[in-house]
Amino acid sequence: MNTSQFLPKAPNYEERVRDSFSRQRVMSTLGASLDSVRPGSIEVSLPFREDLVQQHGYLHAAVVTAIVDTACGYAALSLMPGDCEVLTVEYKVNLLAKAVGRRFIAHGWVVKPGKTISVCSGEVRADSGDGVKLVASMMATMFTVRGSAT
Amino acid sequence: MNTSQFLPKAPNYEERVRDSFSRQRVMSTLGASLDSVRPGSIEVSLPFREDLVQQHGYLHAAVVTAIVDTACGYAALSLMPGDCEVLTVEYKVNLLAKAVGRRFIAHGWVVKPGKTISVCSGEVRADSGDGVKLVASMMATMFTVRGSAT
Amino acid sequence: MNTSQFLPKAPNYEERVRDSFSRQRVMSTLGASLDSVRPGSIEVSLPFREDLVQQHGYLHAAVVTAIVDTACGYAALSLMPGDCEVLTVEYKVNLLAKAVGRRFIAHGWVVKPGKTISVCSGEVRADSGDGVKLVASMMATMFTVRGSAT
Amino acid sequence: MNTSQFLPKAPNYEERVRDSFSRQRVMSTLGASLDSVRPGSIEVSLPFREDLVQQHGYLHAAVVTAIVDTACGYAALSLMPGDCEVLTVEYKVNLLAKAVGRRFIAHGWVVKPGKTISVCSGEVRADSGDGVKLVASMMATMFTVRGSAT
Repeated sequence: MNTSQFLPKAPNYEERVRDSFSRQRVMSTLGASLDSVRPGSIEVSLPFREDLVQQHGYLHAAVVTAIVDTACGYAALSLMPGDCEVLTVEYKVNLLAKAVGRRFIAHGWVVKPGKTISVCSGEVRADSGDGVKLVASMMATMFTVRGSAT
Repeated sequence: MNTSQFLPKAPNYEERVRDSFSRQRVMSTLGASLDSVRPGSIEVSLPFREDLVQQHGYLHAAVVTAIVDTACGYAALSLMPGDCEVLTVEYKVNLLAKAVGRRFIAHGWVVKPGKTISVCSGEVRADSGDGVKLVASMMATMFTVRGSAT
Repeated sequence: MNTSQFLPKAPNYEERVRDSFSRQRVMSTLGASLDSVRPGSIEVSLPFREDLVQQHGYLHAAVVTAIVDTACGYAALSLMPGDCEVLTVEYKVNLLAKAVGRRFIAHGWVVKPGKTISVCSGEVRADSGDGVKLVASMMATMFTVRGSAT
Repeated sequence: MNTSQFLPKAPNYEERVRDSFSRQRVMSTLGASLDSVRPGSIEVSLPFREDLVQQHGYLHAAVVTAIVDTACGYAALSLMPGDCEVLTVEYKVNLLAKAVGRRFIAHGWVVKPGKTISVCSGEVRADSGDGVKLVASMMATMFTVRGSAT
């Protein structure tokens, strides 16, 4: 559920998010893609892959976490001034159902933007081909790193 | 810091943990290994790899999370009866420092074992070759799945 | 934001929630009241009181937590069978803004009901007399205690 | 478990912590006292009181949270420069056992001090008269507010 209704401070926010995403090498290693970039709201998705499973054959919680952390982090970055970068301070994830599906869609959005600290929420849904199911929920605290040249 | 001083219920706890770990395909995909299995206390490590980084070139938080979640989950499993499996209910991770290093060592231990719910803590340290540094801290809730045949 | 669209298992769910709330003596000590009981969605409110503040004169985070934990716990209980009780396993709270206001309204709702584990979200808003502001956000894990006589 | 081995930046750190604690009116309302102030490590305790219970007659989770949040916050403050104040960004609490006892002792300590963000851990023990039991565990993120006159 996207409750974000915020205005971006940097006009090129989408370019900055896409540029940073492309430098996250773990995203291509896992096969994740950045689907949607709106101010304060990001979607990242990942097709199921058999080499990313935990012991019961479901997508590993850490992979679920990877895409929703990335979605939340870039949701925060999308609202920051143009000379800032984002770092994750902490997150909490509840795993709500088995991560079974063909494709996983993470949505992250800003709940409260701030000069130094932004708080985000996120959700991951599994698309099984005949339906979509909520599999994880995140709350995360993001930090604004100022004065970066990027 | 390991505060675990618990007795295992299953005599073959180490074999069960190692067997389950070997079925987590994401662990071999990421290059993680199971270093130490004691009752209520597990160590998992991972060498640095350039294809696992985030946008600043540090190990991605999700990979840090992957190894400490696994360490915590198996710490809980190591104290469960022999017909049980473990599922992660939720975790919280604080990222304390840049994950820079040659090798990352995750330690997970049981704070409070329980029939249905076990609570674990974990830490990840980065070994840079000339020193070891705490980079992440976890608190996790684990669930006992009973009656599995495994 | 209430995303709960669940059916109660116990027809007298509201009575059970109100009865349990009335036995929480800390609620009357703090001056909290149970405003709304719907299946999977609860509201608890509390007027500002000067003896409940932290060092800067705002409502203390623990009091904010008290009302939203209670709202989340009863949201979970409202969907449980009639012979169950609820226990909080864990919660995480982000404090989003100074808790300044005349009255504080906590809303808790079920994100994922479960036989043993239910996951809830919650929010606290401060009503200053001329506007309402989000001051805290919660994610909580609730446990179903079965077979109680109550 | 206190893993804090840090040096205070303000020589009058204890006075500053005690002064701030005394302004937290909710602490006297709940009957909490500040027992021990060391650099990066604080103890707060509270005697059991029947008007602070939840529906089963145990100390309410929010009261348990109140004392350990306060212990963690002041642990962070004790390491900050003299012109700073502390705000809680977020916390996570696992409730490990029924909060039954005559007296509750919260210990908070700094895991990682930082210029802007400090990460703390905390534990609450219940003293029943013939033994002490761990009842709650906290991980918290604290924020340094600079330039305060206090």
